[in-house]
Amino acid sequence: MSVPATTVIPPLTDELDIVIPTIRNLDFLEQWRSFFQPYHLIIVQDGDPTKTIRVPQGFDYELYNRNDINRILGPKASCISFKDSACRCFGFLVSKKKYIFTIDDDCFVAKDPSGQEINALAQHIHNLLSPATPFFFNTLYDPFRDGADFVRGYPFSLREGVTTAISHGLWLNIPDYDAPTQLVKPLERNSRYVDAVLTIPKGTLFPMCGMNLGFHRELIGPAMYFGLMGDGQPIGRYDDMWAGWCAKVICDHLGLGVKTGLPYIWHSKASNPFVNLKKEYKGIYWQEEIIPFFQGVALPKECTTPQKCYIELSKLVKEKLGPIDPYFEKLGDAMVTWIDAWNELNPSADAAPVKKTDAAPKKK
Amino acid sequence: MSVPATTVIPPLTDELDIVIPTIRNLDFLEQWRSFFQPYHLIIVQDGDPTKTIRVPQGFDYELYNRNDINRILGPKASCISFKDSACRCFGFLVSKKKYIFTIDDDCFVAKDPSGQEINALAQHIHNLLSPATPFFFNTLYDPFRDGADFVRGYPFSLREGVTTAISHGLWLNIPDYDAPTQLVKPLERNSRYVDAVLTIPKGTLFPMCGMNLGFHRELIGPAMYFGLMGDGQPIGRYDDMWAGWCAKVICDHLGLGVKTGLPYIWHSKASNPFVNLKKEYKGIYWQEEIIPFFQGVALPKECTTPQKCYIELSKLVKEKLGPIDPYFEKLGDAMVTWIDAWNELNPSADAAPVKKTDAAPKKK
Repeated sequence: MSVPATTVIPPLTDELDIVIPTIRNLDFLEQWRSFFQPYHLIIVQDGDPTKTIRVPQGFDYELYNRNDINRILGPKASCISFKDSACRCFGFLVSKKKYIFTIDDDCFVAKDPSGQEINALAQHIHNLLSPATPFFFNTLYDPFRDGADFVRGYPFSLREGVTTAISHGLWLNIPDYDAPTQLVKPLERNSRYVDAVLTIPKGTLFPMCGMNLGFHRELIGPAMYFGLMGDGQPIGRYDDMWAGWCAKVICDHLGLGVKTGLPYIWHSKASNPFVNLKKEYKGIYWQEEIIPFFQGVALPKECTTPQKCYIELSKLVKEKLGPIDPYFEKLGDAMVTWIDAWNELNPSADAAPVKKTDAAPKKK
Repeated sequence: MSVPATTVIPPLTDELDIVIPTIRNLDFLEQWRSFFQPYHLIIVQDGDPTKTIRVPQGFDYELYNRNDINRILGPKASCISFKDSACRCFGFLVSKKKYIFTIDDDCFVAKDPSGQEINALAQHIHNLLSPATPFFFNTLYDPFRDGADFVRGYPFSLREGVTTAISHGLWLNIPDYDAPTQLVKPLERNSRYVDAVLTIPKGTLFPMCGMNLGFHRELIGPAMYFGLMGDGQPIGRYDDMWAGWCAKVICDHLGLGVKTGLPYIWHSKASNPFVNLKKEYKGIYWQEEIIPFFQGVALPKECTTPQKCYIELSKLVKEKLGPIDPYFEKLGDAMVTWIDAWNELNPSADAAPVKKTDAAPKKK
């Protein structure tokens, strides 16, 4: 079962922001009220900034529309997509918290097989606060779960695990299919509740969906850039995939873990497959070259922070993917702009002025 | 749910042998009768060959004791372990079938959450007959299952999958823990039914348990050697682990798939943790060096059959693991003996005398 109501999960109310990209009234929050209300929400309004988004009463939130994004980032706002849910990463940039949970506004509370409502956020927090095991596969799935452990033959030196940076949740009802699969299987619904969380092994890429996603913002936030999508771009619906490929390669390099599985949310409606096909079709053939590129990426030892990794990756993107289409030159530049914006809004401890007490010579 | 009774699974009754290592009467077969009776059983009797093993009536079987093994293999019988379930691989050697299912005699029929008895063999056959996807992770698990598919972002060029060589099943009730974990958690039982089958990604090793295991004998049988364990050896309970490390590395090299997850069997009783500790303790520290060795194995292109791969691996074992303990020199030699025995008992199509009709020039 998912995290039961009786399990004590540190709520992290002061350390986690919920980021929601939207173009409509956020009535879906009513269903999440008991789970989300203790948290701060960052709402990123996409599309027409003159439109007013209605947020149900009682939630603590800040809301940014396109005018806000332009005002806050100035020329660097060019790296934030418009008319695409990729704009959600602006919320990651302005958050000051350690963790992020991001969810789409057509995702509702799912029920586990016992009929209990699933507290998706509590499960993400549980996933993020328990270690991941990327170096060897555990056949009984997450060894840190109640009633499970490492099986015979699992090396003891690897049982400490590594810090989990990403928790990727799944979807009941409408599965996250591409346009061709949507067109071929219009009636397919996901009704299988798989009661597992597992670590995606080091060296293995996965299709990261942004619909129901938690991550450790301090450790991997700078790699969670959702790319250039939507208005004025040749591609859409690859924002989360792009972030997933980049983030996984960087997690592998930095020795961080990525988990997938629980929690489920209830995905209420499929987007239009014809519209999706138009957005996706370039991605469908580009990914045949992009994925081998990411599978072959090797970052130098000197890249010890997600920022350094990401800048290095941006160079490789321009060099190796640029020949596919000029879009990747532009994307490589946008990746650098994103890191500039990240560093501006998130001056790190390293970059912060040294306090006098810190500068004093240490006593032995 | 597991494979429902209504799903048509090719029964492969003429193409699959069930291999059971044992030292006792096979009363456990009564519970499996409806599922196993259509198949041929190969029983490998371990320990005292003068003892008579009682097999319930109505089963079609052949039984080999140590005297039979010595008679059939002659001096090559040295590669088959004695007083250890590793002797089961003798059954793989003498089988003439395309597929093997092997099960321990303390494993019973499990029930799925709906209360239905699980036909473990049918699920293994389903796993083996549907493709595997080792090159990219699918977040909805096995894309070839009813109600599932490849998710958005999964490269289309990889959706054909590869042939599945190994199907690794799991255990309800007594989990497959090592002696230290057994000692620390004597009361832990596995009651979590995870309704999933997944491909273990290329490049990732896993702890393969021999308790409930199916495989494609023609494609990977020569790598399914269970090593030198038990009587006269410094180690036990690493037979299946050894086979799993070798087989996974060879599957990765040959482009074959390895699946884990369903089906579950009911594992009835835990073995004695003190006895297990004595058998395992060298393995527990040796595996800290063995696993990095296997993670780094690169087989040359010329190794195009499991036999060639295995011979190459035997050389690497002697060279790289020999310095740990003289045992690995002996094991490397036994690996070669095993392949000699395999080739003797399984003359391949290539090596078989060419039939006249085959040799005749083909008409266009």
